[in-house]
Order: sequence, then structure tokens, then C-alpha cells
Amino acid sequence: MLAEIITIGDEILIGQIVDTNSAWMAQTLNNIGIRVKQVSSVSDDEQHILDALKLAESRAEIILITGGLGPTKDDITKKTLAKYFNMGFRRDEETLQQVSAIFAKANRPMIELNRMQADVPDGCVVVPNRNGTAPGMWFNENGKIFVSMPGVPYEMMYMMEEEVLPRLKTTLNVPFIYHKTILTAGIGESFLAVRIAEIEASLPEYIKLAYLPKMGQVRLRLSGSSRDEQQLHADINHYSKQLADEVREFVVVEDDIPLETAVMNIMKSNNLTLSTAESCTGGYLSHLLTRHPGSSAVFSGGAVTYSNDLKMAVLGVQASTLLEYGAVSEQTVKEMATGALQAFKTDYAISVSGIAGPDGGTPDKPVGTVWIAVASAHGVEARKSTFGNKRTQNIERAAASALILLLSRLKLDHQ
Amino acid sequence: MLAEIITIGDEILIGQIVDTNSAWMAQTLNNIGIRVKQVSSVSDDEQHILDALKLAESRAEIILITGGLGPTKDDITKKTLAKYFNMGFRRDEETLQQVSAIFAKANRPMIELNRMQADVPDGCVVVPNRNGTAPGMWFNENGKIFVSMPGVPYEMMYMMEEEVLPRLKTTLNVPFIYHKTILTAGIGESFLAVRIAEIEASLPEYIKLAYLPKMGQVRLRLSGSSRDEQQLHADINHYSKQLADEVREFVVVEDDIPLETAVMNIMKSNNLTLSTAESCTGGYLSHLLTRHPGSSAVFSGGAVTYSNDLKMAVLGVQASTLLEYGAVSEQTVKEMATGALQAFKTDYAISVSGIAGPDGGTPDKPVGTVWIAVASAHGVEARKSTFGNKRTQNIERAAASALILLLSRLKLDHQ
Repeated sequence: MLAEIITIGDEILIGQIVDTNSAWMAQTLNNIGIRVKQVSSVSDDEQHILDALKLAESRAEIILITGGLGPTKDDITKKTLAKYFNMGFRRDEETLQQVSAIFAKANRPMIELNRMQADVPDGCVVVPNRNGTAPGMWFNENGKIFVSMPGVPYEMMYMMEEEVLPRLKTTLNVPFIYHKTILTAGIGESFLAVRIAEIEASLPEYIKLAYLPKMGQVRLRLSGSSRDEQQLHADINHYSKQLADEVREFVVVEDDIPLETAVMNIMKSNNLTLSTAESCTGGYLSHLLTRHPGSSAVFSGGAVTYSNDLKMAVLGVQASTLLEYGAVSEQTVKEMATGALQAFKTDYAISVSGIAGPDGGTPDKPVGTVWIAVASAHGVEARKSTFGNKRTQNIERAAASALILLLSRLKLDHQ
Repeated sequence: MLAEIITIGDEILIGQIVDTNSAWMAQTLNNIGIRVKQVSSVSDDEQHILDALKLAESRAEIILITGGLGPTKDDITKKTLAKYFNMGFRRDEETLQQVSAIFAKANRPMIELNRMQADVPDGCVVVPNRNGTAPGMWFNENGKIFVSMPGVPYEMMYMMEEEVLPRLKTTLNVPFIYHKTILTAGIGESFLAVRIAEIEASLPEYIKLAYLPKMGQVRLRLSGSSRDEQQLHADINHYSKQLADEVREFVVVEDDIPLETAVMNIMKSNNLTLSTAESCTGGYLSHLLTRHPGSSAVFSGGAVTYSNDLKMAVLGVQASTLLEYGAVSEQTVKEMATGALQAFKTDYAISVSGIAGPDGGTPDKPVGTVWIAVASAHGVEARKSTFGNKRTQNIERAAASALILLLSRLKLDHQ
């Protein structure tokens, strides 16, 4: 069963916002066995939207549309859908009540522009929006399913989870899709490919292998679809185990989870606590940890010591160390980690100090130079990396390196 | 002049990664006056790629393709392009040297799979990749320009900035595009629309107004394109000023910059320093600040006090306050802010404590309850918000609220 996603809105096409909706939608669709054939981002332009609908309809059975449902003039998705299906409009009473309730709760007066949010093409089924004023719309037309949803991520997400996915599941009878991912670190894509070439060649036609490199990690993903769910799982798990065994020393975890989750899982099951001491990553490392529910079981907290003053005051880094070796040095990053261990009373502490750029580089410490350290009762170890000269990239790679170092330490200490 | 972006790779269509490349590319293309007509994400499937190329070619003059250039079997972009243009292959000597140099620098042996990265369709112009082994490819075919680039963001970005954009600029003679954005906070989209209805109606045909709502903020964006750059700028600036004057009390900044940059600009020009004390935002707030170059001029650092122990040890929050009022309370968040002010010796401190979810809610403090405070020599003030029950959303909205509160405080104190 194939779906297509059409996102509507000039803001994506001029690059003002990143389309995060599509990835989330694709993932949730995959989970119920629906494969996304194409994602198309088109402008708030009637003819362009009409064309995109026509093409999507020719390739897929389910067309999910987001965006362009706001109350203002630049939003034309609703009237374009009415034109596409040759429908008139009706005012939906339930939606009107829902919109009125939102305004009442917020204690704000309602104007005709808001009431018009309840006008929908007369041949659609309204999909309630519990978090906003623009209703979703479900069309069964031309033998296909079309669903139009708001572009605001959390409105769309609720609508998908509470309304659209359950309806799709009951309406369709789809084959199962199954993915299994192995997260590796410390080996390049081509070397992985050579190491596992024989296994790759032996894969049955209906199982695909993909290499997904990112930040010093490569994810190996096996995917397949079949009507026989049990056989599918058995086959993919069999080949996944073969792959993992072949490159065992580089395997972080045999699951599609982020690095930080793999770290926290090991720590949680060993009742270990963690703190952070960040300079160049500026809070990104603790954000990576705390974006996950339940992280408080492992992560106690940390310090973002951007200035040298705070490195000394909060983490107890010696002034003489900073003076002699500088903030980006093995000595400083080690003192940061041991300082965090003491100040925050955790079992492990990770620290990062580097030059994220674009400024601040010197000939012997160019932009992209990053020191990371891990401290615990077992001692402290540090490692240096040299990345490129993109700030965002350096921050992300530094955080990933710190997690990889911690993970290798944890494996030695606790597995 | 119209461009299309085609991103190739199953990882986007199964939602394993978010496509951040397209937004960045669209922005940089816009800056040189090229409008993106459509972004299409398609799978690593030959026929699908061929179809996407054909359709893109029918709508646009420039087709930029990313992804599918890795050395492994699942990457088929290069051979599909050769098929599309009916070309054979040649081994590019410069690319081979570049690839060899990368392997020599990393002290890694080279295998045939790596050497094959230097094979390109024989009718293309090679676009050098300074940061990876997959070369870019430029085709002048069918009266259109096609450029194929790697999907790895920083490889693509360098290639665009150093090679592709300069070549496009010299090759094309395009009209100017100009955007101007006003960032507002504290007023809903529909109310803004009513307030500025007359100005909106008076806009000339070639200037478009868009409303971009996000996290308690609405961006108003005026866009236009013209061959008369001076007139275009004058007109858009004229209407932009009218709009901003009409809703002056809600205007954060008349520029397309993030909230945190607006905050830091005010602080920098007043020589003010900032620290943070984060609980539920877990480092996200300091990450927002530090992801920008030059943030160290304003931001000294902060604490991520996830546990109550750290709230007391690092920020000096009273045990009795936590006991009597709880971690998510006006009293605690105020003590966190004043504690940060003292511990980190900054002019301002912002603190956040809330229940990000999905667990931890109670009847009187449901998931989504967030307290924020701002402290300075002028005193400390706190505000409560109630968001929804999505963790990521709550973290992002809490950080935005804290910045909005700080901004309103700064405007009272320093403008």
C-alpha cells in the first residue's frame, strides 16, 4: 500500500522552515505497513496544488496533505481541494462548536474569519482538530483516500495519532513492513560494505540493506515487506544477527535508537548516574539526553561553562591549568569532567571543550579542535578530535564523540 | 527563474532522517533570485528517479539533486543520471586524486569501491567535493541545468557555496527576489490579520504577505520579485514599516532572525551578560543561545539542574521551598533565577522549571505546566504557562516563552 505526502506552503520552498512533518508522518505510516512513495513540497498556488494532487493520485492510494489551512488569505488548500473534487461548501456545526470552545477557553472574542474555519467542502468527512481551529478533511474520491491536515506539527501529530491512523488501519488491509537497524560507530561506510559484502550478496530479493552514515556512526538498515509477518520478522532478524556478528566490535546497539538512548539504557540497567560539563557544545549534549522521556533516571544535570570564570567557579578547573594549557586542552577537559563528577555527585561525567567556530581558531588549535573526557571512579580519559569549520556540525559531532567515548567506557566497565 | 530540488533516499521516505538540506538550499537559492518551485523526495528506485527528473525538467530550469551518491549498492543516483542522459562512464582523474588524498590523510587503505567514486557520466562536468569522496556532477542537457550533489549536509553545503552558487550566478540572468520579515509575539494569527487587513488589501499585486505562526510567535513575511531591485526594496520596506507600525506593541524585531538572536543583539549592544538555570528544558535553552556564533559575548553559561539535589547545590534553591511548593512552582523558579544570577555573576538570568511529560503530571500540575522566571538587578518576575502533553513541543515552547519574557523585560529596562 503506497502513500504520498504533499506539504503545502511557500515557507518550506523559501527555506524559512524545515519540513519535519514528513519524516514523522512517514515513520508512523511505516509502522502500520504503509510505504511512502514520494514527498512533495509545493507552493500556495492553486494550479501547482491541483497538479500535485493529480500526480500523487496517479502513483499512490493514500494522499496525505499538510498545510495551507490557516484563516488567512495566503492559505488556499481548502478551496483548492473543493475545486479539485468539484464540491461546494458547508459549515460544519461540530467544528464551529470546537472553534468556539477554543476561543471561549482562551477568553478571546471570535470573528467571522475564525467562524469560517468551520466551512468545509461538502463531500468530505471532517477530522476533528483537538488542538487548533482548522479541521482536518477526509475524502474518499476517485477510489483513493485524501486527507488534508494542518501544517502546525503538534496539531497534525495529534490528528494523525488520534484520528487518521486508526481510520486507515480499519479501512485497509496492508502487507507488513519491517525494519531492523544496527548502529555502528568507529568504522567507515566502505569498510563496512567490504566486511559484510558476502552477507549482503546472500540477502533474498525482498530484503533491502541500506547504509546510513552520520556523525562518525553508520546505521545498517534491513527492510522488507511481506504478507507473512512471522516469516518476515524471522528472516530479517536472521540476517541482522549475521551482520551484527560480522562487525561485532563496531556495534553500538542492534536497534534503531539514538546513541544517547543506547548510553542511557546501559546506565539505567546498571543504576548509574551521569552529569555533563559542556563548553563548546553549549547545552546541546544535555539537550540530547533530556529530550527523551525518563532521562532523569540517569541524568542528574550539568553545567554549561561557556566562560572561563564559570569553568573555575562551577567545575573547579584550576586557573593555572587554563593559563598554561588553555580552555581547549586535555588538562582542562579532564578537570572539567572530574570537577563535574565531584560537584554533581554522579557515577560518570562527560565534558567537552572545543572551538566550534567560525572564530577562535589558532594555527595549532584550528576551528574544529575538540577535546572530550569521561570521568568515573575508574579514572578519567580524554580524546581529541579535529572536525571541520561548520559550527553546527562541530557541536553535533562533538556531542556524538563524547557519547561514543562514554559508551566504550561503559562497555569496558559494566559488560 | 525556477529551480526544483529532488532528494533521493529511502531514509527520508521511511522517516529515519529529516530533510534539512532542502530548506537550506531553498534559502541560498532565494538569495540569488532563484525561486524553488517544488521539493520532491523520492526513493532509491531507478524508474521513480527517472520519472522525477522528467517532471522536474518540465516545471523548472534548474534541477538540483541530492543523495544516493555513496559507494554502496543502494546508491543508484549516478548510474540513473547516466541512463537518463544516455551517457557512458569515464574515470575522472582529478576526483581520483582527491579521493586518494582523503584516504592518505586519514591513513586508511583504498579499495576499488572507493576508486569507483571517481567514475562519472562522460557528459558531465565534475563539481569537486572538498569534504568527501563523492564528486558532484553538473549537466547542461535538454536546455536545462542539472546538478547532482551528495546528501551529507556539510558536503552538500560546501559544494553549493563554493562551486554551484557561483557558477549559477555567472550563468544566469535572474530577477531579484526580496523578503522582509517582522517577528511578532503575544498576538494570534487571526487577530493580526484583522489588525492589518487594510494594509494587506492595499499591497500591490507583486508583493505577497504570509503569516508564519510558531511557538507563540507569528512571523509576517512580505515577498516580491522584480528586475528593478531598488524599487522592489523600497516598496517592500515601505509596506513592512506600515505593518510594523500598525502592530508595534507586538513587534519583537523587524528582521528574519530567531528570537534568541533578537535577545542577544539587545543584550550585546547594552553590554549585558546572561546565564540560564534549566530544569525541564534540559539544556535546550542554552543550546538555542550557543548555536549562534558570537554568543559568548552575552552568554556566560548556566546550569542544567535536572535533580532537586543540583537545584540546591548549584543554584542555592532552599530545601524548604522544594518541599513546600515543589520543583515546578513560582517560588522555586524564582530562586533558580536569582541563584543563577549570583552563582554565575551575570546581569540577567532566566530559569525554567516544568513538567515536560509524558509522565510526572498531577491533577493540579498537569503535564505541560511550566514556570519561567527572569532575574536581574531590577528584581525577579515569574510567569506560568500551560502547554500540551508532547514532550518536545513543551521543551521548545518553554524555551521560547522564557526568551519572550526576557525580551519584554529587556525592552522595559533598556529601550
